[in-house]
Amino acid sequence: MIRSAQNAKVQETRALLRQTKRRKGAGAFVVEGVRLAREALLSGWPLRLALHTEELAAAEPRLLRELAARGATVELVSEAVMKAAADTQTPQGILLQLALQPPALPANLDFVLVLDGVADPGNLGTLLRSAAAAGCGAVLLAPGCADAYGPKVLRGGMGAHFRLPVLSQSWEEIAAVLAAHKLQPLLAAAGEGPAYYEHDLRQPLALLLGGEAHGASAAARALAPQPLHIPMPGGAESLNVAAAGSILLFEIVRQRASS
Amino acid sequence: MIRSAQNAKVQETRALLRQTKRRKGAGAFVVEGVRLAREALLSGWPLRLALHTEELAAAEPRLLRELAARGATVELVSEAVMKAAADTQTPQGILLQLALQPPALPANLDFVLVLDGVADPGNLGTLLRSAAAAGCGAVLLAPGCADAYGPKVLRGGMGAHFRLPVLSQSWEEIAAVLAAHKLQPLLAAAGEGPAYYEHDLRQPLALLLGGEAHGASAAARALAPQPLHIPMPGGAESLNVAAAGSILLFEIVRQRASS
Repeated sequence: MIRSAQNAKVQETRALLRQTKRRKGAGAFVVEGVRLAREALLSGWPLRLALHTEELAAAEPRLLRELAARGATVELVSEAVMKAAADTQTPQGILLQLALQPPALPANLDFVLVLDGVADPGNLGTLLRSAAAAGCGAVLLAPGCADAYGPKVLRGGMGAHFRLPVLSQSWEEIAAVLAAHKLQPLLAAAGEGPAYYEHDLRQPLALLLGGEAHGASAAARALAPQPLHIPMPGGAESLNVAAAGSILLFEIVRQRASS
Repeated sequence: MIRSAQNAKVQETRALLRQTKRRKGAGAFVVEGVRLAREALLSGWPLRLALHTEELAAAEPRLLRELAARGATVELVSEAVMKAAADTQTPQGILLQLALQPPALPANLDFVLVLDGVADPGNLGTLLRSAAAAGCGAVLLAPGCADAYGPKVLRGGMGAHFRLPVLSQSWEEIAAVLAAHKLQPLLAAAGEGPAYYEHDLRQPLALLLGGEAHGASAAARALAPQPLHIPMPGGAESLNVAAAGSILLFEIVRQRASS
């Protein structure tokens, strides 16, 4: 059993949870908790190292066997070490390192979400979860977004990372994806364009969402998107970006189901 | 200038930000930041004490004059004291104490949101913001919800607290409101009932949302609600509660605008 938080494997896991730079340098990230570990296992992503407590081994012996069978080094750690390494206050007793393997875009895409400067990890996680649930084909993260592989984004995403491609791209790359798949760019913009439910959302499209602080960037505007707005009879200025995005994603689902 | 974090006014402000119990005991709460202070000023709620920095006084002299004119005691504090009292990492330089004055329900209600065990302050704040934007008449908080007057809920609500009644109620009180206003109870429930967009949402209704951890409680079910589900073509198990609630709130807006 690893009993020292200074152990190299523990230190590496801790750093991968806390530092975007370390994740990029090592080409790896860490998911925390039973649910995300199970999703990771099902996903086929390359597994590296699982740290777990005794309690977790007693509760989830099969999960540990399957992680080992899929190539993960499985290491028992003390409760104190788990607490020191984990990102949550009350860890579930498992931390799993995976190789960061950016998935390829599917050959056919008719529904893409593009996020522009969504810097809050909670909002980004919620948007990834909603996009995966809506059957979105990919999420493209423009510059200024939070790191999709941070622990809070992974928790908020509830496994979305393993169910659809989430790619950090330059605006040039994003423009190329839109052109290649003939996706109409739509931009959520307060008070601009028609109400979102008055626009035909059954055609191939890319939904662009601006960030919490500054709205849509000039680069997003340069894609010449069709603006759409969410009518707000209560007279508020704006919605939370994850709420607005979820409303738009599921209007796309509604229209496509009804057509 | 108050230079000691031990000052009684600073200590009280700090405690009101951090402790639900203190807020309930004192019948007061604290909003942080220029935007919420402005919303509080416009709302007509009784103001008590404003703590601000020199920098804030230079940037927002009119806000401080108006707060004083509306009866607030206005006190200059050092940057260090502001940091010690505030809830955010980089405070904007103003903390405003208000009397907690639960607003009355409007005489006519045809659109109410009932939250059941929404314990995450970020989700609760986002739901209040979406409800206010959707023109919801009131939000009723059943037992098990986070305190609506905590700092994270207030920030997430972006002023919603001042724009619609947000009331903590027992299930008996909630049932009485529904009966008095003849509101049809609808329950967001994974996989149950028709798709939400197939149900007529133009009639007077109360939308019930269960919490993150346990879904709808037995008490919510006892209201005999009509279940509705959000179809998820991507095959996820569930959505974030604030995302799901926002989707449903704005489908109500859409149907009522189109009718």
